[in-house]
Amino acid sequence: MKKIIVDMMGGDNAPEETIRGVLLAKEELSAELLLVGNREVLTAKAAELGVSLDGFEIVHTEVEITMEDDPIVAVRTKSDSSMSVGLKLLAEDKGDAFVSAGNTGALFTGANLLVRKLRGVRRPAIAAVLPMTPPVLLLDSGANLSVTPEYLEQFAVMGSAYMKKMMGLEAPRVGLLNNGTEDHKGTELQIETYQLLSKNPKINFVGNIEGNAVMFGACDVLVCDGFSGNILLKTMEGMGKLMLKTMRELFTASAATKAGYLLVRSHLGEVKKSFDASEHGGAPILGIAKPVIKAHGSSKAKAFKNAIRQALVAAENDLTEELTEELAILSERKKAEKAAAKETNEE
Amino acid sequence: MKKIIVDMMGGDNAPEETIRGVLLAKEELSAELLLVGNREVLTAKAAELGVSLDGFEIVHTEVEITMEDDPIVAVRTKSDSSMSVGLKLLAEDKGDAFVSAGNTGALFTGANLLVRKLRGVRRPAIAAVLPMTPPVLLLDSGANLSVTPEYLEQFAVMGSAYMKKMMGLEAPRVGLLNNGTEDHKGTELQIETYQLLSKNPKINFVGNIEGNAVMFGACDVLVCDGFSGNILLKTMEGMGKLMLKTMRELFTASAATKAGYLLVRSHLGEVKKSFDASEHGGAPILGIAKPVIKAHGSSKAKAFKNAIRQALVAAENDLTEELTEELAILSERKKAEKAAAKETNEE
Repeated sequence: MKKIIVDMMGGDNAPEETIRGVLLAKEELSAELLLVGNREVLTAKAAELGVSLDGFEIVHTEVEITMEDDPIVAVRTKSDSSMSVGLKLLAEDKGDAFVSAGNTGALFTGANLLVRKLRGVRRPAIAAVLPMTPPVLLLDSGANLSVTPEYLEQFAVMGSAYMKKMMGLEAPRVGLLNNGTEDHKGTELQIETYQLLSKNPKINFVGNIEGNAVMFGACDVLVCDGFSGNILLKTMEGMGKLMLKTMRELFTASAATKAGYLLVRSHLGEVKKSFDASEHGGAPILGIAKPVIKAHGSSKAKAFKNAIRQALVAAENDLTEELTEELAILSERKKAEKAAAKETNEE
Repeated sequence: MKKIIVDMMGGDNAPEETIRGVLLAKEELSAELLLVGNREVLTAKAAELGVSLDGFEIVHTEVEITMEDDPIVAVRTKSDSSMSVGLKLLAEDKGDAFVSAGNTGALFTGANLLVRKLRGVRRPAIAAVLPMTPPVLLLDSGANLSVTPEYLEQFAVMGSAYMKKMMGLEAPRVGLLNNGTEDHKGTELQIETYQLLSKNPKINFVGNIEGNAVMFGACDVLVCDGFSGNILLKTMEGMGKLMLKTMRELFTASAATKAGYLLVRSHLGEVKKSFDASEHGGAPILGIAKPVIKAHGSSKAKAFKNAIRQALVAAENDLTEELTEELAILSERKKAEKAAAKETNEE
């Protein structure tokens, strides 16, 4: 059975929702769980909630990285925090994957420093699962603000491997986020990346994707720099909130619309669910030697459990082996291309 | 009375909707209109629609710039197109502002080449009016993919002047689109721009704005590079469409939800209207010596009329004079700063 290491102290709702989350996970998933956090705090909170963590293996830590901590400083100075200890346990093969709802920057930095990158990876990426139907994997979603075409090609390869292994897609459609669909669109970064992706025989590149096509099934994997990815992600989030607010206002506008609400209420749940990111788990950090999943900072128990499930599926499906293999193929091809180019030059 | 020059041949729905649009404008607005386009085509289409363009001054042109034309090539080779002729009439003071629903890139390039930039402007910007309540002016929305902090400071100054003159705001709140709110967030571009905007005493800088805050009244003017602006704009557009689609599906899901629809129907119109960009007119190109308004390519009559109204308001309120003045103040301040820095160095 796979063992998932869980940061119990990270996130806005820890430890209450992380406790409820691991209890849900224990019920629903075939996985061993290794909890990292303050044993006294966890036990007391569990008692307060009328539940018990008996039977869970707990690695005791007394320090926590907060949402306000500077990521790099936190990883360096809080090496005994629940997040750092969890990552070190992962690096030491004490578990098969790691889940945390804590400080995103610290988790990314910590994963890079404490668990190491996969062989050949230029820059790991944080991939967000956009809650569309079907879901879209967006990478990078904010960890790498400045990127090169080579990084983006690796993101495309890693994103493809993820969607193959995790969602069972045979040939995930990879799109490049851009300000138009024509191949000459974008800045130098997008123009060069378009060429790289077009020439890569191992990915199913479907071309440039505009912001208004992302949510209508234009691609399965969307590649971009972390700045644009963050803008896209947050704008979608904000518009989703605005949509819910607008519907609330609509349904409370008058006695008639209130009556209308009662008639559609049962279907509204499905609508909400179809836009609920937590249904899909968390954001995988791709390019790290072992699966690391960032659960949303505001995760409730179910979302946290879903992130644990996602970590389990990644571990069971040998996601990192697939990533390693695909990255090695890419690296070999690049070497061969270089050698061929050199030969041509010498002739 | 101000005279607005109108490109009758640009846009997806020309000339039918441009004809209906100028007829609406004639009814509702106190403005002279100077139409540019193919007289025979316009007259025939008007007859077909059962309306008349009698009494309108028409400058005859036989060539059109299409949506597929390359902007720079089109402006260079189609100097007798309705768009180019319209812009030249504007440059020759034959009218006070210009409106076109045609090729955005060609209009931007043409305005730069044929009408000239305002004194001191590094790069004009296309500003989009986001249909929020209250509206937000986003610039640049896609014309300038690569920018410098100096460009962005000018965008902030021009956007402020626009919102003052056109919306009557006293101290428009200027935000910088970024991937976080802290002052160190973003790439070098955002970090340096943050400093420039913070130090500028003439603008009401409210700091970094994330994508999920734009739609909740966080600022009146949102400054960014054209690539990010395009992503934001298109993502909002796509999410708006997804919202309408979702509501349609909700209300047709069952007999009960169909009955629910009848109860909320009268309020749905208001919801749709509050997200309707065409209510606000078009996208002003700021930094050009005279007002140029880009109507949306898919404009129907009302949207086109609203763009004409926007051009009229810009002309009546001396928008370009205000822009010139504010830019001159900025330029003086920059010179003074440079001189002071030089003196400090020499001491």
